[in-house]
Amino acid sequence: MTSEALPFVETALRVRYAETDRMGIVYHANYIVWFEIGRTEYCRSAGMPYRAMEDAGVLILVTSVECRFRRSARYDDAIRVRARMSELSSRGCAFAYEILGEGAILLADGETRHVFADAAGRLRRAPAELMEPLMRFREVG
Amino acid sequence: MTSEALPFVETALRVRYAETDRMGIVYHANYIVWFEIGRTEYCRSAGMPYRAMEDAGVLILVTSVECRFRRSARYDDAIRVRARMSELSSRGCAFAYEILGEGAILLADGETRHVFADAAGRLRRAPAELMEPLMRFREVG
Amino acid sequence: MTSEALPFVETALRVRYAETDRMGIVYHANYIVWFEIGRTEYCRSAGMPYRAMEDAGVLILVTSVECRFRRSARYDDAIRVRARMSELSSRGCAFAYEILGEGAILLADGETRHVFADAAGRLRRAPAELMEPLMRFREVG
Amino acid sequence: MTSEALPFVETALRVRYAETDRMGIVYHANYIVWFEIGRTEYCRSAGMPYRAMEDAGVLILVTSVECRFRRSARYDDAIRVRARMSELSSRGCAFAYEILGEGAILLADGETRHVFADAAGRLRRAPAELMEPLMRFREVG
Repeated sequence: MTSEALPFVETALRVRYAETDRMGIVYHANYIVWFEIGRTEYCRSAGMPYRAMEDAGVLILVTSVECRFRRSARYDDAIRVRARMSELSSRGCAFAYEILGEGAILLADGETRHVFADAAGRLRRAPAELMEPLMRFREVG
Repeated sequence: MTSEALPFVETALRVRYAETDRMGIVYHANYIVWFEIGRTEYCRSAGMPYRAMEDAGVLILVTSVECRFRRSARYDDAIRVRARMSELSSRGCAFAYEILGEGAILLADGETRHVFADAAGRLRRAPAELMEPLMRFREVG
Repeated sequence: MTSEALPFVETALRVRYAETDRMGIVYHANYIVWFEIGRTEYCRSAGMPYRAMEDAGVLILVTSVECRFRRSARYDDAIRVRARMSELSSRGCAFAYEILGEGAILLADGETRHVFADAAGRLRRAPAELMEPLMRFREVG
Repeated sequence: MTSEALPFVETALRVRYAETDRMGIVYHANYIVWFEIGRTEYCRSAGMPYRAMEDAGVLILVTSVECRFRRSARYDDAIRVRARMSELSSRGCAFAYEILGEGAILLADGETRHVFADAAGRLRRAPAELMEPLMRFREVG
């Protein structure tokens, strides 16, 4: 199953004035913030809100990020963030993202990789009660 | 003693691309971030680094902020942040700030008010070992 | 007519992970960004989207901001931003804001003051076609 | 010549409170902002300040970014950003970065890729007067 076939969760947002830069477009690091918004909504849709995971002592650390910028977003544009969980094991996971602008044009895409950690930042395995809903959601959305 | 007579600590910074907006100038909320940089360096100069204060269980919560924007800063401008502790009691403190641009032009000024809290966010009085260096520094710089 | 009696526009948002700080709460300068989101949605509701105003050569510069922080917001909290245009003349305007958290608790309130400027940043009067919809909206919402 | 052999420019900065998140560490997207600070200082050292380049109509658009996060930075840490221009042609360039924390520990490394554009965002070739100082600096630092 290719990454594109996996269920995704789509989140809508509007470009904030604060997110633009003097080129008149969205400052590129903000796409990485939007990726995280996509992850948050993905976990909520999968029945595992990320805040609840943290409160239960399972942190998802970011170990790498990649982003390819294809077109520019502008102030007040309506944006959609699509997030998929592209990999999942008891030690960590990966997400793939697409950022769509007005007219569903692809503005950027990318990936993040993650490991699970405890509240002190030590690597840990994710418990079954976290893994199962995420695995189920990956199969059927 | 007027606020202007109090010793101040000056911190230099350069405007980041990320701090500009589509007007081509620094996005206004970033001045509030610069105020905080001024506070951090003020506390360090007074011999009470803010990180050490937090590690010792004394948090400085922000209860209000005011900022007047007079002129615009631009990408790559050399900025100086001047911070003074304008009030101090065992319950809280206040800071006054000036943001200076190229040629020492006043770009913005403002104030923040603070209360002391413990790690759980409950109000507390600052202990003597924190108050004394701050009070001494306010008198002689 | 007191400020509270003026029509307001309410915008919903969710606290982003990026907006928190090491105290575990929303970093205070982000409330100023939320004020701006409130302004953007107010202007849209009044029939004068701010991007269209800028494209037509009318910029709204921020000349001052005040914010009082009453309670903390946390990651993933559902937030509502209420914005009212509290003053309006051909030279500028002012907005009043309330930030509400879960259970409609007041987290922060504040004001911003503004002048109208042209694309080069020079002060200008707002044209009638901009003033009229804003004045009408202030009366009846 | 490997990328590591190329001359680099090192910039010092201190972690801002605003850059931390509720995990108590620097929010990951801020490393991408630090990369840009490294680029800015690299161009200045090469005799081609980026603001002057933009004013002369040569914009450097970001087409991709990669970052690997190895260790966490914390509030008030002294950070060094090392930037190298790893590729350069008349159409674009690439940079490689290392983020070093206290004790010169590697916190993160990454790359960005860029194309040259004009003020309207159209792709363009960089003129000789820009290329030459950059090429010379890449050889001897």
